[in-house]
Parts: sequence; structure tokens; C-alpha cells
Amino acid sequence: MAKILILGAGVMGTALSVPLTDNGHVVNLVGTHLDGDIIAKLQAGYPHPRLGIQVGERVTIYTYEELSEAVKGVDLVVIGVNSHGIEWAAQALSLVLSIDTPILAITKGLAGDGEKLSILPDVLVAHLPDSLRTRIQIAAIGGPSIAQELAARRHTCVMFTSKNAALLQHLASLARTSYYHIWTDTDIIGIEVCVALKNVYALAVGLVIGFLEKEGKAVNNAEMHNLAAAIFAQGMRETAYLVDKMGGKTESVYSLPGAGDLYVTCQGGRNSRMGRLLGLGIPYSQAKAEYMPNDTVEGASLALAIGSTVENMIDKGELDAIALPLLRTMIDIVCHNAPAIIPWEKFFATSQSPKIDF
Amino acid sequence: MAKILILGAGVMGTALSVPLTDNGHVVNLVGTHLDGDIIAKLQAGYPHPRLGIQVGERVTIYTYEELSEAVKGVDLVVIGVNSHGIEWAAQALSLVLSIDTPILAITKGLAGDGEKLSILPDVLVAHLPDSLRTRIQIAAIGGPSIAQELAARRHTCVMFTSKNAALLQHLASLARTSYYHIWTDTDIIGIEVCVALKNVYALAVGLVIGFLEKEGKAVNNAEMHNLAAAIFAQGMRETAYLVDKMGGKTESVYSLPGAGDLYVTCQGGRNSRMGRLLGLGIPYSQAKAEYMPNDTVEGASLALAIGSTVENMIDKGELDAIALPLLRTMIDIVCHNAPAIIPWEKFFATSQSPKIDF
Repeated sequence: MAKILILGAGVMGTALSVPLTDNGHVVNLVGTHLDGDIIAKLQAGYPHPRLGIQVGERVTIYTYEELSEAVKGVDLVVIGVNSHGIEWAAQALSLVLSIDTPILAITKGLAGDGEKLSILPDVLVAHLPDSLRTRIQIAAIGGPSIAQELAARRHTCVMFTSKNAALLQHLASLARTSYYHIWTDTDIIGIEVCVALKNVYALAVGLVIGFLEKEGKAVNNAEMHNLAAAIFAQGMRETAYLVDKMGGKTESVYSLPGAGDLYVTCQGGRNSRMGRLLGLGIPYSQAKAEYMPNDTVEGASLALAIGSTVENMIDKGELDAIALPLLRTMIDIVCHNAPAIIPWEKFFATSQSPKIDF
Repeated sequence: MAKILILGAGVMGTALSVPLTDNGHVVNLVGTHLDGDIIAKLQAGYPHPRLGIQVGERVTIYTYEELSEAVKGVDLVVIGVNSHGIEWAAQALSLVLSIDTPILAITKGLAGDGEKLSILPDVLVAHLPDSLRTRIQIAAIGGPSIAQELAARRHTCVMFTSKNAALLQHLASLARTSYYHIWTDTDIIGIEVCVALKNVYALAVGLVIGFLEKEGKAVNNAEMHNLAAAIFAQGMRETAYLVDKMGGKTESVYSLPGAGDLYVTCQGGRNSRMGRLLGLGIPYSQAKAEYMPNDTVEGASLALAIGSTVENMIDKGELDAIALPLLRTMIDIVCHNAPAIIPWEKFFATSQSPKIDF
């Protein structure tokens, strides 16, 4: 039996408590300063308001003021904050974390500092104090995992990743159940790039919902799946380019973290909702402010986090503009309020033959 | 202006007449012996019964008895029959085809002769007489293209493929419109393997519809997208393995023919309908006979066409059993009426770490 701290009581952090407690572990679930309502509900015995389930008996609920109490004696810390909270999480843990306690990060995203792109586990570690930074062990999870389904014990397949193969086996054995199928792979860069980019490409696929709503069904009831599928394919291709460019393995792209996670993220959720608004023709800043002011739209957050860095790297020739037309379009839409127009003529530009006559 | 024969008046053959006639070409649309009802409807001026649109004024409708008349002076022959009709099409064309007329095949599938797998363009050519076989030029189309959407002039992105790059450019220029976006790539093996396998993997993803219907929604309304996405990802991975094994380029797998075409095929259609029946627990032979006796379910057709050859190649060590657990499962379900059980423990087996404890 292990004792596990989960920092962040959002849907995914809380859902992960289900397989962990099913395996007999005890979980201390600590809300962030944004999770006040959730923590109050859970402490009062209600179901998680967004996850729709009761947490198990082996889960103890804490507010973030109680973090130093909750972290005592834990064998593992799971970081379940959203991408905006990763530096906060590092700072919060700096004061209380033991050097022997590994971290399992489920936050998805990339960071850009203007010059280069970084995966979030590296950002997290960089924000830890010197004493922890060089020796802390860190792992992450990628793969198609809608939190509500995991919480309902639906079959879910994920990839655990870390540079430390022994840690990976240990973490997988803690969390693996008959419904939570876990594979392991040391390609942390490839996996993290895939699962971060899936949000912005799912946002792109979501545009089609708005396009269809605007144009209406055709006389023969034809929808726009061809268009969505082409955007999906271009997203896969750009993901492969960036994974390769950042030093990851392209095999991860046509596996759970790439194809699987992008597929599941296109099935709905906040990226799709925002995509629809953008596809309807509403500029991003208006759509965010008027319709989704309190929602974290991870695809838009990613575009904002890496937009200027990607533009800068393209200007310097460090990234190939021709390889990333869809990412650039999404950056234009989110960072510069550009209209949602699909740049067909720039898609699949590394194919062998020149494109003409579009 | 070119004169183009389309052999097969199914949804895709007929849909292709839309961009071709929009470009000013004339089309002779010839039904097969299975298309009698369609041809009668079209000749009487009704919309295509499955496509839901009227054919254009530049389309002339022929029965297959009139093939030798319809083929006169054509610049291109499009093969739009289903996978069961490819040998018939070769034989029918043998009598009337000029050696200078290239063929554009839109039929998807693979053939197995017990010893090896072949792409359909090779099967087609092999069934032509000696005089044509060595010199005929052949091309094919891959990519996400629901026929009804193309017929409604919805944005559609496809890849034309042939070993002959000059032919490719010519064919693309004949068919390319403002809504029919065409790329070209000489990787005919990779593209044909992708677009054939997508049918059997879409059938596999479709199983989940039946599983969900059988189990019902969860208390928190969770569905089973995680499971569908994992099957999708395993399908992508197996596709990459087979493309590589057959001499194609794995780049095609995370592009339009692989990711894009599999994505669109999972959005519905006959593979999904059959997948649901199998997921509900109905054995394949019963599901086919009772519920879909007159439907060509391309995913099942593929399993039947290549099942014993794949099994034989695995027995001889020419294919790696470990790399193809999902294909083997689908072959068991379709060819041997096995129950629909997902072999989780065999998925992603070429990952670096051993899997335990499932």
C-alpha cells in the first residue's frame, strides 16, 4: 500500500484516485486555490461537481492551506493542476517536498520562453529549488483518457513516461488495474509534445462544428467529416514534425499519445466548444470573454503559451514554416484574433510533388 | 476538356463525377451488373438513391452492356467498383480498353493469395491481358472522402498516387477544384495499404458502439471514447507496421491516407454499423445474414480477403504476430465467428518495457 498525494482536484487529478484506491492505496487529494468549491463539495460528501462521482473512502480531502500536512509521508506526488498552474505547483511543493518522493505529472502543455519550447516536466523541475532540481525523479502520463470515463472505470489505455525506466515500472504497478491499462515508454519528449499539441489540433478540428453550423447541412444531408479528417491528418503530420524536431520519437505519434489522444480530444470538451465559436466567425478574444470566461481551453492556452516563441523560431529558421501551417493558423486565430480560415494550399507541403491551382 | 469513363455507379464513383464535370470534362458513368436500380433511377432523371444528388448535365448514364460504346474515345478510366468487383472490372475492361488510356482506381482493399498480400492496383493489372499489363498506367486515390460530402462540394482533401509522377500531375489537374483538394505522392503501396486497412480498423472502433449499448452509460454519463481511441491508436500502429513491411512509407500513415482516412471512416457508415452488431455480441455470420445481407461491409470484406493469408504469413514468420493483435482479433471475429473481445494485454507490444499484471 502506498500513500499518494494528488495536487489539484480537477477532473483528471480526482479521476486518478479511482484506480489508485482500487489498488488499495490511500490518496490525499489537495485542491488548489481555484478548487475551493470542489473541495467544499467533496468535504461535505457530495459527488465531484464536474466528474459526477463520489470519491472513495480511501481519499482524504485537503485544502491547499493544508498541503504541508497532506504531503507528510507520501510515496508519490501527482501533479493534477492545469497548464497555467505548473509553476505555482512547483513553488508550492518546493517548501514541502522530500527529495525521495517522485512526481507524476498529468498536466498537459508546452512552455515557450521566446527562444525555445520546453515540455512541462522540465518547466516543473526548473522551478524547484536547487536542492531538489538535480535529483528529483519525474514521470508523466499520456494517452486518451477522458477523466469521467476513467472515474467510471471504463477501459482506458495510457502511456506512462519517464527517463527512469525503473521508476516507470514502479508507478505503472501502483496504478494499473483491470480497466486502467498502462504501457511505459521512456520517450518523455515525444509523448509530452504529442499530448500537448493534441489540444491545439483538437481546437482546429472543432472549427468544423462552427463551419457546419454556419453553412448548414447540404441537400443530401452531407456534413463536414472530410474537412475535419483532413485537419486531423495535418495535425498528426505537424505533431510528427515537432516531435522529431524536439528530439522525441515519431513512433509515439501513431500510438496512444499521438493518434489516440488527439482522437479522443476531438470527441468533445472545451477545445471543441471553443473551436465551434471560432468556426462561427467569433474572434477569439470575444469568444473567450463572452462565452467561456471561466473555462481553461487548453488548446488556446497552448497557442498563447508558445505562439510568440514558435513565430520567433520560424523567423530564425529554427522551425520550418512550411511544416507548420495549421499551428501557425491557430496561433494567428488565438494570439492575433485572425479569422478562422483553413490554409488548404499550405497543407501537406512536404509531399513529393508541388501543389498547383488551388 | 477530357472524356472520362467511370465504371461503377456506387456513391464514390458517382461523386467523383461532380468535380470532374465542374472542371468542364464529360463523364460516361457506367453501372455494373449490381447497379441496375441506380442506373434506372439516374436514367429516369431521379437523384442517385444513395448519394442524394442529381448527376450533372455533362454525365451520360450507361448500363454495363453498353460499356464498349461508353469507352470509345475516353482519356481516362476511373474504376469505382467495390473490392469484390476488381477482377470483374479487369475482365470487363480487357475487351475494350486502349493501351494509352490510364486507369484511376478508387476501390479500396487488399488481396491475399495464401502466400502474400497485394494492393488492388496490382491485382487489377494482373488480371489484364498481356498486351495491356506491361504498359498500362495506373493511379489510385487515398484519403478521407465521404462520397456524399464530395458530391455536395464540401471541402475534401485526398492524395492521388501512382508510380508515374507525370501521370499524377495530369490526373490531379483534371480533378482539382476549389473544394476538391488534391495532393500527389508516389508511395502507392503505403497509401493503398493505409486506405484498405482503415476499413477493418474502423470496424474495430465500431465495436465500442455495441459495447456501450450493452453496458449502458455510466452514472456520470461517461461513454467509451477512451476505449475507441485506444483501438484507433492500435490500428494506426498496426497500419504503420504493415505499410513498412510491404515496402511503403510510414509517413503516409500520419497523413491523409492513414490518420485522415481512418478518422473519417470511424464517423459512421457500414463498418460502424457492423461493428455495433459485433460489439453487441452477435457472431459475424449471423450479423451479416440477418441484418446486413445486401451491404458490402468493406472492413469485413478485407478480413475475409486477407485473413488466411495473414495467418499463413504469421505461421511462416513473415509477419510478426506480436505486431498485429488487433488485425488478428478482427480476422478471428469475421473469419471464425469469434466473440468480440479486445486483447488489451497484446496491444502496443513493441513498446520498450514489458507489460505485466493485466
